[in-house]
Amino acid sequence: MRERIAFLGRTHVTRTRVRFGETDAAGIVFYPTFFTWFDLGTHGLMRDAGATRDAEGRPVPMLPIVECGAKFSAPLRSDDPIAIHSRVVEIGKSSMRIEHVVRHREHEVGRGFEVRVMVRRDGRRIIPEPIPESVRVGLAENGIATGDDLA
Amino acid sequence: MRERIAFLGRTHVTRTRVRFGETDAAGIVFYPTFFTWFDLGTHGLMRDAGATRDAEGRPVPMLPIVECGAKFSAPLRSDDPIAIHSRVVEIGKSSMRIEHVVRHREHEVGRGFEVRVMVRRDGRRIIPEPIPESVRVGLAENGIATGDDLA
Amino acid sequence: MRERIAFLGRTHVTRTRVRFGETDAAGIVFYPTFFTWFDLGTHGLMRDAGATRDAEGRPVPMLPIVECGAKFSAPLRSDDPIAIHSRVVEIGKSSMRIEHVVRHREHEVGRGFEVRVMVRRDGRRIIPEPIPESVRVGLAENGIATGDDLA
Amino acid sequence: MRERIAFLGRTHVTRTRVRFGETDAAGIVFYPTFFTWFDLGTHGLMRDAGATRDAEGRPVPMLPIVECGAKFSAPLRSDDPIAIHSRVVEIGKSSMRIEHVVRHREHEVGRGFEVRVMVRRDGRRIIPEPIPESVRVGLAENGIATGDDLA
Repeated sequence: MRERIAFLGRTHVTRTRVRFGETDAAGIVFYPTFFTWFDLGTHGLMRDAGATRDAEGRPVPMLPIVECGAKFSAPLRSDDPIAIHSRVVEIGKSSMRIEHVVRHREHEVGRGFEVRVMVRRDGRRIIPEPIPESVRVGLAENGIATGDDLA
Repeated sequence: MRERIAFLGRTHVTRTRVRFGETDAAGIVFYPTFFTWFDLGTHGLMRDAGATRDAEGRPVPMLPIVECGAKFSAPLRSDDPIAIHSRVVEIGKSSMRIEHVVRHREHEVGRGFEVRVMVRRDGRRIIPEPIPESVRVGLAENGIATGDDLA
Repeated sequence: MRERIAFLGRTHVTRTRVRFGETDAAGIVFYPTFFTWFDLGTHGLMRDAGATRDAEGRPVPMLPIVECGAKFSAPLRSDDPIAIHSRVVEIGKSSMRIEHVVRHREHEVGRGFEVRVMVRRDGRRIIPEPIPESVRVGLAENGIATGDDLA
Repeated sequence: MRERIAFLGRTHVTRTRVRFGETDAAGIVFYPTFFTWFDLGTHGLMRDAGATRDAEGRPVPMLPIVECGAKFSAPLRSDDPIAIHSRVVEIGKSSMRIEHVVRHREHEVGRGFEVRVMVRRDGRRIIPEPIPESVRVGLAENGIATGDDLA
């Protein structure tokens, strides 16, 4: 029995341009920037799912990350237009895996993932919390979780 | 006689949102981020003026900066929508002063300036160059430089 | 009568190297990085003054900044060793002006300032607070504030 | 036959503190920062190996990265002292895998890896190059590559 199940989530697409400050002296994007884009994509997804603001409209801290990774296939330069395609591909009781694909003019230039866990803090202790049903529904494209669509 | 003359330039507006990674542990935007936005605004201005790509479509290094400053009037939080209004307000033979105003829902939250100089490099030496007429024309709203509209 | 008085503060020197990720596609330091160094210098100063941790050892949010500026005189490249010299040069009831000089191998490559204000928050409102005497004493080289040493 | 072989490289330790600007509104380190530390560790390793400066003392562009990943086990806060332990753990003809462990007061708080490839550019094309023998020797603790010490 697996804790995480595959999940056909909605895709959030973040369109932006490579900022000059995101490049380095090699003339291309400084690689940690890809994770700032993944984080941006996850925030976009969560905003769509109604999970970034509380009832008073204040920002809710994002789910902490426990694991991530990326592969890079082509360099990007300043001012290049990019699209970050973000989607939840696995979801468990407290955690989810989000997949991100970065495209430049229809070509994939990098992809990666984040594993995030819903938590609350109790002083220095961090305690996993169930992902609220409202977030789960907000993340699903048609409210459907499926076991055979693991991207 | 002044070297720099006041200049009624076109305004470039960059619309974006505060990224979560641009905040700090105080819960608000980490202040150096404002300068990354000013740089973004200047690149937008230069792109409009046809000055960011060379004839082969490669990015042209931005004009180096020699001076800058900012004042902050209200805090910004993650996900806040912002608009950066950027405009050249003075122009000389080799240098220009760009003014940036950052607004959040029609309220000004910060403003600042950059002084940039057109240069070429000769080994370790940096030599001022005249700003090309094409850039000067591209930056002017109606192709008009005027002496009495210093914002 | 001036609210701020000149202040001969202790100097905090932060020694570090230019990080590769702090450069941009022009091959030199991306200018907003200088303000991340100024912020680093101010934190060093405050740590020396015993003002960055509360009684339980938790980080205290830094004094918010209301104004800053910088001038740049020479480019820096990845891996260059630098020293950031930081000092309070003016102090008032709630605010202080900190001056930062960045040196590379004994040569000044940039300098700037920050004006910061001690505050407390009351909901969305921000209220100036007197700078505690302990911080004021911690910042002074010999516990002496003087009116004729404005750097 | 494997292209990459396990390698007992020297360990480079980078000691620094969490910068305030490296935290986010959740009060802890913004996770992409870990990769900026990994990059810093790799540069330290390469500097030790004599591979960051060319014969004229100019910075050599770092080996581009093709893959990376990280796991995070404990949060870090502003001003926390950290040590980044970096080591090449696999080396091939053109590529190497570098492992990074981040410690705070002797406790591991995160770890990750980078896979980097030595290349040269031929216009837009990127061509793998053999890792120079001098770099290979510089990276080895005792000049020894071994097959049974894969960390």
